[in-house]
Amino acid sequence: MNFPPKIVEDAIEEISKLPGIGKKTALRLVLHLLKQDKDATSNLTAALSHLREDVQYCGTCHMISDTTDCTCRTITRDLATICVVQDTPDVMAIENTHQYKGLYHVLGGVISPIEGIGPEDLHIESLFKRIDTSEPKIEEVILALNPTMEGDTTAFYITKKLKALGIKVTTIARGIPIGGELEYADEVTLGRSILTRTIYD
Amino acid sequence: MNFPPKIVEDAIEEISKLPGIGKKTALRLVLHLLKQDKDATSNLTAALSHLREDVQYCGTCHMISDTTDCTCRTITRDLATICVVQDTPDVMAIENTHQYKGLYHVLGGVISPIEGIGPEDLHIESLFKRIDTSEPKIEEVILALNPTMEGDTTAFYITKKLKALGIKVTTIARGIPIGGELEYADEVTLGRSILTRTIYD
Repeated sequence: MNFPPKIVEDAIEEISKLPGIGKKTALRLVLHLLKQDKDATSNLTAALSHLREDVQYCGTCHMISDTTDCTCRTITRDLATICVVQDTPDVMAIENTHQYKGLYHVLGGVISPIEGIGPEDLHIESLFKRIDTSEPKIEEVILALNPTMEGDTTAFYITKKLKALGIKVTTIARGIPIGGELEYADEVTLGRSILTRTIYD
Repeated sequence: MNFPPKIVEDAIEEISKLPGIGKKTALRLVLHLLKQDKDATSNLTAALSHLREDVQYCGTCHMISDTTDCTCRTITRDLATICVVQDTPDVMAIENTHQYKGLYHVLGGVISPIEGIGPEDLHIESLFKRIDTSEPKIEEVILALNPTMEGDTTAFYITKKLKALGIKVTTIARGIPIGGELEYADEVTLGRSILTRTIYD
Protein backbone atom coordinates (compact mmCIF):
# COMPACT_ATOMS: atom_id res chain seq x y z
CA MET A 1 0.00 0.00 0.00
CA ASN A 2 1.31 3.37 -1.05
CA PHE A 3 0.67 5.33 2.11
CA PRO A 4 1.01 8.16 2.95
CA PRO A 5 0.75 9.48 -0.62
CA LYS A 6 3.76 11.36 -2.01
CA ILE A 7 1.98 14.72 -1.95
CA VAL A 8 1.40 14.39 1.81
CA GLU A 9 4.87 12.99 2.44
CA ASP A 10 6.46 15.95 0.65
CA ALA A 11 4.52 18.40 2.79
CA ILE A 12 5.42 16.50 5.98
CA GLU A 13 9.06 16.40 4.91
CA GLU A 14 9.19 20.17 4.35
CA ILE A 15 7.32 21.07 7.53
CA SER A 16 9.43 18.76 9.70
CA LYS A 17 12.56 20.64 8.58
CA LEU A 18 11.40 23.48 10.82
CA PRO A 19 13.03 23.54 14.26
CA GLY A 20 11.11 21.73 17.00
CA ILE A 21 8.68 20.10 14.59
CA GLY A 22 8.94 16.35 14.10
CA LYS A 23 7.16 14.04 11.67
CA LYS A 24 4.17 13.52 13.96
CA THR A 25 3.55 17.22 14.50
CA ALA A 26 4.05 17.81 10.78
CA LEU A 27 1.39 15.23 9.99
CA ARG A 28 -0.96 16.86 12.48
CA LEU A 29 -0.42 20.25 10.81
CA VAL A 30 -0.98 18.74 7.37
CA LEU A 31 -4.27 17.17 8.46
CA HIS A 32 -5.27 20.46 10.08
CA LEU A 33 -4.64 22.38 6.86
CA LEU A 34 -6.57 19.80 4.85
CA LYS A 35 -9.57 20.28 7.12
CA GLN A 36 -9.51 24.09 6.75
CA ASP A 37 -10.59 26.21 3.81
CA LYS A 38 -8.11 26.43 0.95
CA ASP A 39 -7.76 30.11 1.89
CA ALA A 40 -6.06 29.18 5.16
CA THR A 41 -3.24 27.47 3.30
CA SER A 42 -2.91 30.13 0.62
CA ASN A 43 -2.80 32.91 3.25
CA LEU A 44 -0.09 31.01 5.09
CA THR A 45 2.05 30.37 2.02
CA ALA A 46 1.59 33.96 0.81
CA ALA A 47 2.68 35.38 4.17
CA LEU A 48 5.74 33.12 4.22
CA SER A 49 6.77 33.94 0.65
CA HIS A 50 6.26 37.64 1.26
CA LEU A 51 8.29 37.41 4.47
CA ARG A 52 11.22 35.62 2.89
CA GLU A 53 11.30 37.69 -0.30
CA ASP A 54 10.77 41.15 1.06
CA VAL A 55 12.21 41.24 4.56
CA GLN A 56 15.08 43.63 5.14
CA TYR A 57 17.58 44.24 7.89
CA CYS A 58 18.09 47.78 9.15
CA GLY A 59 21.56 48.99 8.18
CA THR A 60 21.94 50.77 11.52
CA CYS A 61 20.57 48.51 14.25
CA HIS A 62 20.45 45.23 12.18
CA MET A 63 16.90 44.52 13.32
CA ILE A 64 14.43 42.83 11.00
CA SER A 65 12.49 45.51 9.17
CA ASP A 66 10.36 46.33 6.14
CA THR A 67 13.07 48.73 4.93
CA THR A 68 16.85 49.03 5.18
CA ASP A 69 16.34 52.14 7.26
CA CYS A 70 14.04 51.13 10.07
CA THR A 71 12.31 53.30 12.62
CA CYS A 72 14.89 52.45 15.28
CA ARG A 73 16.06 56.08 15.35
CA THR A 74 12.92 57.93 16.22
CA ILE A 75 12.90 61.23 18.07
CA THR A 76 10.67 59.83 20.81
CA ARG A 77 13.40 57.48 22.01
CA ASP A 78 16.50 58.18 24.09
CA LEU A 79 19.19 58.55 21.41
CA ALA A 80 22.13 58.50 23.84
CA THR A 81 21.69 54.87 25.00
CA ILE A 82 22.21 51.69 23.01
CA CYS A 83 21.09 48.29 24.24
CA VAL A 84 23.13 45.46 22.69
CA VAL A 85 21.29 42.16 22.24
CA GLN A 86 22.05 38.83 20.62
CA ASP A 87 19.02 38.50 18.38
CA THR A 88 15.66 39.94 17.41
CA PRO A 89 13.49 38.06 19.96
CA ASP A 90 15.53 39.73 22.71
CA VAL A 91 14.44 43.13 21.39
CA MET A 92 10.82 42.01 21.55
CA ALA A 93 11.28 40.70 25.09
CA ILE A 94 12.80 43.98 26.27
CA GLU A 95 10.19 46.07 24.43
CA ASN A 96 7.46 44.11 26.19
CA THR A 97 8.81 45.24 29.59
CA HIS A 98 8.14 48.92 28.67
CA GLN A 99 11.17 49.77 30.82
CA TYR A 100 13.57 50.80 28.10
CA LYS A 101 13.26 53.73 25.72
CA GLY A 102 16.71 53.85 24.11
CA LEU A 103 18.15 52.40 20.91
CA TYR A 104 18.96 48.78 20.10
CA HIS A 105 21.83 47.03 18.37
CA VAL A 106 21.37 43.43 17.26
CA LEU A 107 24.64 41.48 17.07
CA GLY A 108 23.12 38.56 15.15
CA GLY A 109 24.78 36.02 17.46
CA VAL A 110 27.51 35.75 20.09
CA ILE A 111 31.21 34.94 19.93
CA SER A 112 31.58 31.15 20.00
CA PRO A 113 35.00 29.67 19.19
CA ILE A 114 33.52 26.14 19.24
CA GLU A 115 31.09 27.02 16.45
CA GLY A 116 33.73 29.10 14.69
CA ILE A 117 31.91 32.39 15.24
CA GLY A 118 34.32 35.27 15.79
CA PRO A 119 33.70 39.01 16.33
CA GLU A 120 34.04 39.60 12.56
CA ASP A 121 30.98 37.38 11.92
CA LEU A 122 28.79 39.59 14.10
CA HIS A 123 27.65 43.20 13.89
CA ILE A 124 30.26 44.28 16.45
CA GLU A 125 32.41 46.47 14.23
CA SER A 126 29.29 48.31 13.07
CA LEU A 127 28.43 48.94 16.73
CA PHE A 128 31.74 50.70 17.27
CA LYS A 129 31.30 52.68 14.05
CA ARG A 130 27.77 53.60 15.07
CA ILE A 131 28.94 54.85 18.46
CA ASP A 132 31.81 56.72 16.82
CA THR A 133 29.61 58.63 14.37
CA SER A 134 26.51 59.00 16.55
CA GLU A 135 24.92 62.39 16.98
CA PRO A 136 24.00 62.98 19.84
CA LYS A 137 26.93 61.22 21.50
CA ILE A 138 26.20 57.76 22.96
CA GLU A 139 26.52 57.97 26.72
CA GLU A 140 25.74 54.42 27.80
CA VAL A 141 25.86 50.99 26.23
CA ILE A 142 23.71 48.40 28.01
CA LEU A 143 24.74 44.80 27.35
CA ALA A 144 21.66 42.56 27.45
CA LEU A 145 23.30 39.27 26.46
CA ASN A 146 22.41 35.82 27.74
CA PRO A 147 24.31 34.77 30.87
CA THR A 148 26.11 31.92 29.07
CA MET A 149 29.83 31.46 28.45
CA GLU A 150 29.46 32.76 24.90
CA GLY A 151 27.36 35.71 26.05
CA ASP A 152 29.87 36.60 28.73
CA THR A 153 32.78 36.30 26.27
CA THR A 154 31.02 38.63 23.87
CA ALA A 155 30.20 41.06 26.66
CA PHE A 156 33.84 41.01 27.80
CA TYR A 157 35.10 41.67 24.27
CA ILE A 158 32.74 44.61 23.71
CA THR A 159 33.33 46.06 27.17
CA LYS A 160 37.11 46.07 26.72
CA LYS A 161 36.87 47.97 23.44
CA LEU A 162 34.25 50.45 24.63
CA LYS A 163 36.01 51.25 27.89
CA ALA A 164 39.04 52.27 25.82
CA LEU A 165 36.74 54.77 24.09
CA GLY A 166 35.62 56.11 27.47
CA ILE A 167 31.98 54.98 27.17
CA LYS A 168 29.96 53.82 30.16
CA VAL A 169 29.12 50.12 29.75
CA THR A 170 26.47 48.44 31.92
CA THR A 171 24.92 44.98 31.92
CA ILE A 172 21.43 43.89 32.88
CA ALA A 173 21.27 42.58 36.45
CA ARG A 174 21.71 38.88 37.08
CA GLY A 175 19.99 37.61 40.19
CA ILE A 176 17.03 35.79 41.63
CA PRO A 177 14.03 36.08 39.27
CA ILE A 178 10.91 37.77 40.65
CA GLY A 179 8.75 35.00 42.09
CA GLY A 180 11.76 32.69 42.36
CA GLU A 181 12.75 31.01 45.60
CA LEU A 182 16.19 31.34 47.18
CA GLU A 183 16.09 27.70 48.22
CA TYR A 184 15.97 26.51 44.62
CA ALA A 185 18.28 29.09 43.05
CA ASP A 186 21.61 27.79 41.75
CA GLU A 187 24.70 28.79 43.71
CA VAL A 188 26.27 30.95 41.02
CA THR A 189 23.13 33.07 40.60
CA LEU A 190 22.57 33.40 44.35
CA GLY A 191 26.25 34.16 44.93
CA ARG A 192 26.27 36.85 42.28
CA SER A 193 23.02 38.33 43.57
CA ILE A 194 24.72 38.89 46.94
CA LEU A 195 27.85 40.40 45.38
CA THR A 196 25.83 42.77 43.17
CA ARG A 197 23.19 43.60 45.81
CA THR A 198 21.39 46.93 45.38
CA ILE A 199 20.59 49.55 48.00
CA TYR A 200 16.98 49.70 49.22
CA ASP A 201 15.64 53.22 49.15
CA MET B 1 9.11 52.09 17.43
CA ASN B 2 7.34 50.03 14.82
CA PHE B 3 8.40 46.56 15.87
CA PRO B 4 8.01 43.79 14.78
CA PRO B 5 7.49 45.04 11.20
CA LYS B 6 4.17 44.27 9.54
CA ILE B 7 5.64 41.71 7.19
CA VAL B 8 6.95 39.68 10.14
CA GLU B 9 3.77 40.17 12.14
CA ASP B 10 1.67 38.87 9.24
CA ALA B 11 3.79 35.74 8.98
CA ILE B 12 3.63 35.18 12.76
CA GLU B 13 -0.13 35.69 12.66
CA GLU B 14 -0.61 33.08 9.94
CA ILE B 15 1.76 30.52 11.46
CA SER B 16 0.25 30.85 14.93
CA LYS B 17 -3.15 29.88 13.50
CA LEU B 18 -1.79 26.32 13.24
CA PRO B 19 -2.73 24.05 16.14
CA GLY B 20 -0.23 23.87 18.97
CA ILE B 21 1.81 26.80 17.67
CA GLY B 22 1.72 30.01 19.66
CA LYS B 23 3.15 33.44 18.93
CA LYS B 24 6.56 32.63 20.43
CA THR B 25 7.01 29.44 18.44
CA ALA B 26 5.78 31.25 15.33
CA LEU B 27 8.42 33.94 15.84
CA ARG B 28 11.07 31.27 16.26
CA LEU B 29 9.99 29.61 13.01
CA VAL B 30 10.00 32.97 11.21
CA LEU B 31 13.54 33.72 12.39
CA HIS B 32 14.61 30.21 11.40
CA LEU B 33 13.26 30.67 7.87
CA LEU B 34 14.95 34.05 7.58
CA LYS B 35 18.29 32.47 8.44
CA GLN B 36 17.90 29.72 5.82
CA ASP B 37 18.26 29.97 2.06
CA LYS B 38 15.29 31.41 0.21
CA ASP B 39 14.88 27.93 -1.30
CA ALA B 40 13.89 26.51 2.09
CA THR B 41 10.89 28.82 2.27
CA SER B 42 9.88 28.38 -1.37
CA ASN B 43 10.08 24.58 -1.06
CA LEU B 44 7.90 24.74 2.02
CA THR B 45 5.28 27.02 0.48
CA ALA B 46 5.26 24.99 -2.76
CA ALA B 47 4.71 21.71 -0.88
CA LEU B 48 1.88 23.26 1.15
CA SER B 49 0.14 24.76 -1.89
CA HIS B 50 0.54 21.52 -3.81
CA LEU B 51 -0.85 19.58 -0.86
CA ARG B 52 -3.90 21.77 -0.42
CA GLU B 53 -4.72 22.11 -4.11
CA ASP B 54 -4.14 18.58 -5.31
CA VAL B 55 -4.91 16.26 -2.42
CA GLN B 56 -7.74 13.80 -2.96
CA TYR B 57 -9.71 11.42 -0.80
CA CYS B 58 -10.18 7.85 -1.93
CA GLY B 59 -13.82 7.19 -2.79
CA THR B 60 -13.63 3.70 -1.29
CA CYS B 61 -11.62 3.89 1.95
CA HIS B 62 -11.72 7.73 2.39
CA MET B 63 -8.00 7.88 3.05
CA ILE B 64 -5.94 10.84 1.88
CA SER B 65 -4.55 10.01 -1.53
CA ASP B 66 -3.09 11.43 -4.75
CA THR B 67 -6.10 10.11 -6.66
CA THR B 68 -9.77 9.42 -5.98
CA ASP B 69 -9.03 5.73 -6.47
CA CYS B 70 -6.18 4.96 -4.11
CA THR B 71 -4.12 1.83 -3.84
CA CYS B 72 -6.10 0.63 -0.82
CA ARG B 73 -7.42 -2.34 -2.81
CA THR B 74 -4.24 -4.05 -3.85
CA ILE B 75 -4.01 -7.75 -4.50
CA THR B 76 -1.22 -8.18 -1.96
CA ARG B 77 -3.55 -7.34 0.91
CA ASP B 78 -6.22 -9.41 2.64
CA LEU B 79 -9.41 -8.28 0.88
CA ALA B 80 -11.80 -9.98 3.32
CA THR B 81 -10.95 -7.85 6.37
CA ILE B 82 -11.69 -4.17 6.93
CA CYS B 83 -10.18 -2.19 9.77
CA VAL B 84 -12.32 0.83 10.71
CA VAL B 85 -10.43 3.83 12.10
CA GLN B 86 -11.31 7.36 13.09
CA ASP B 87 -8.77 9.27 11.04
CA THR B 88 -5.75 9.02 8.77
CA PRO B 89 -3.02 9.09 11.47
CA ASP B 90 -4.57 5.92 12.90
CA VAL B 91 -3.93 4.17 9.58
CA MET B 92 -0.31 5.22 9.73
CA ALA B 93 0.00 4.02 13.32
CA ILE B 94 -1.43 0.60 12.46
CA GLU B 95 0.65 0.31 9.29
CA ASN B 96 3.77 0.97 11.37
CA THR B 97 3.06 -2.12 13.48
CA HIS B 98 3.34 -4.37 10.37
CA GLN B 99 0.74 -6.63 12.06
CA TYR B 100 -2.20 -5.91 9.77
CA LYS B 101 -2.51 -6.70 6.09
CA GLY B 102 -6.21 -6.07 5.41
CA LEU B 103 -8.15 -3.09 4.14
CA TYR B 104 -8.93 0.18 5.92
CA HIS B 105 -11.96 2.38 6.22
CA VAL B 106 -11.54 5.93 7.53
CA LEU B 107 -14.68 7.31 9.22
CA GLY B 108 -13.41 10.88 9.30
CA GLY B 109 -14.47 11.29 12.93
CA VAL B 110 -16.62 9.66 15.59
CA ILE B 111 -20.23 10.09 16.64
CA SER B 112 -20.39 12.96 19.12
CA PRO B 113 -23.83 14.34 20.07
CA ILE B 114 -22.18 17.19 22.02
CA GLU B 115 -20.38 18.43 18.91
CA GLY B 116 -23.41 17.66 16.77
CA ILE B 117 -21.69 14.90 14.79
CA GLY B 118 -24.08 12.11 13.85
CA PRO B 119 -23.58 8.92 11.81
CA GLU B 120 -24.67 10.77 8.65
CA ASP B 121 -21.68 13.17 8.99
CA LEU B 122 -19.24 10.25 8.89
CA HIS B 123 -18.34 7.66 6.26
CA ILE B 124 -20.46 5.02 8.01
CA GLU B 125 -23.12 4.53 5.33
CA SER B 126 -20.37 4.05 2.74
CA LEU B 127 -18.85 1.35 4.98
CA PHE B 128 -22.10 -0.62 4.90
CA LYS B 129 -22.39 -0.11 1.14
CA ARG B 130 -18.78 -1.20 0.69
CA ILE B 131 -19.35 -4.36 2.72
CA ASP B 132 -22.55 -5.02 0.81
CA THR B 133 -20.94 -4.81 -2.62
CA SER B 134 -17.54 -6.21 -1.75
CA GLU B 135 -16.06 -9.01 -3.85
CA PRO B 136 -14.63 -11.17 -2.20
CA LYS B 137 -17.08 -11.05 0.71
CA ILE B 138 -15.95 -9.19 3.84
CA GLU B 139 -15.53 -11.72 6.65
CA GLU B 140 -14.37 -9.56 9.51
CA VAL B 141 -14.59 -5.91 10.49
CA ILE B 142 -12.01 -4.82 13.06
CA LEU B 143 -12.98 -1.68 14.98
CA ALA B 144 -9.82 0.26 15.89
CA LEU B 145 -11.43 3.30 17.49
CA ASN B 146 -10.13 5.29 20.42
CA PRO B 147 -11.35 4.01 23.82
CA THR B 148 -13.30 7.20 24.55
CA MET B 149 -17.02 7.64 25.06
CA GLU B 150 -17.42 8.86 21.47
CA GLY B 151 -15.30 6.01 20.12
CA ASP B 152 -17.33 3.45 22.08
CA THR B 153 -20.62 4.98 20.92
CA THR B 154 -19.49 4.78 17.30
CA ALA B 155 -18.28 1.20 17.77
CA PHE B 156 -21.62 0.25 19.34
CA TYR B 157 -23.56 1.84 16.47
CA ILE B 158 -21.52 0.07 13.78
CA THR B 159 -21.52 -3.27 15.62
CA LYS B 160 -25.30 -3.28 15.96
CA LYS B 161 -25.80 -2.72 12.24
CA LEU B 162 -23.13 -5.19 11.13
CA LYS B 163 -24.28 -7.99 13.43
CA ALA B 164 -27.69 -7.77 11.77
CA LEU B 165 -25.87 -8.43 8.49
CA GLY B 166 -24.19 -11.49 10.02
CA ILE B 167 -20.65 -10.11 9.83
CA LYS B 168 -18.02 -10.88 12.47
CA VAL B 169 -17.08 -7.68 14.31
CA THR B 170 -13.99 -7.50 16.52
CA THR B 171 -12.30 -4.68 18.39
CA ILE B 172 -8.64 -4.14 19.16
CA ALA B 173 -7.70 -5.30 22.68
CA ARG B 174 -7.83 -2.79 25.51
CA GLY B 175 -5.48 -3.58 28.35
CA ILE B 176 -2.21 -2.78 30.06
CA PRO B 177 0.25 -1.30 27.53
CA ILE B 178 3.48 -3.24 26.96
CA GLY B 179 6.05 -1.77 29.37
CA GLY B 180 3.29 -0.37 31.56
CA GLU B 181 3.00 -1.12 35.26
CA LEU B 182 -0.09 -2.64 36.88
CA GLU B 183 0.40 -0.45 39.92
CA TYR B 184 -0.13 2.73 37.89
CA ALA B 185 -2.83 1.46 35.53
CA ASP B 186 -6.28 2.99 35.96
CA GLU B 187 -8.99 0.75 37.40
CA VAL B 188 -11.13 0.61 34.28
CA THR B 189 -8.26 -0.54 32.08
CA LEU B 190 -7.00 -3.07 34.61
CA GLY B 191 -10.53 -4.33 35.26
CA ARG B 192 -11.20 -4.79 31.58
CA SER B 193 -7.82 -6.48 31.04
CA ILE B 194 -8.88 -9.13 33.58
CA LEU B 195 -12.32 -9.61 32.03
CA THR B 196 -10.92 -9.95 28.51
CA ARG B 197 -7.85 -12.01 29.50
CA THR B 198 -6.38 -14.17 26.77
CA ILE B 199 -5.22 -17.79 26.97
CA TYR B 200 -1.44 -18.33 27.13
CA ASP B 201 -0.34 -20.89 24.59
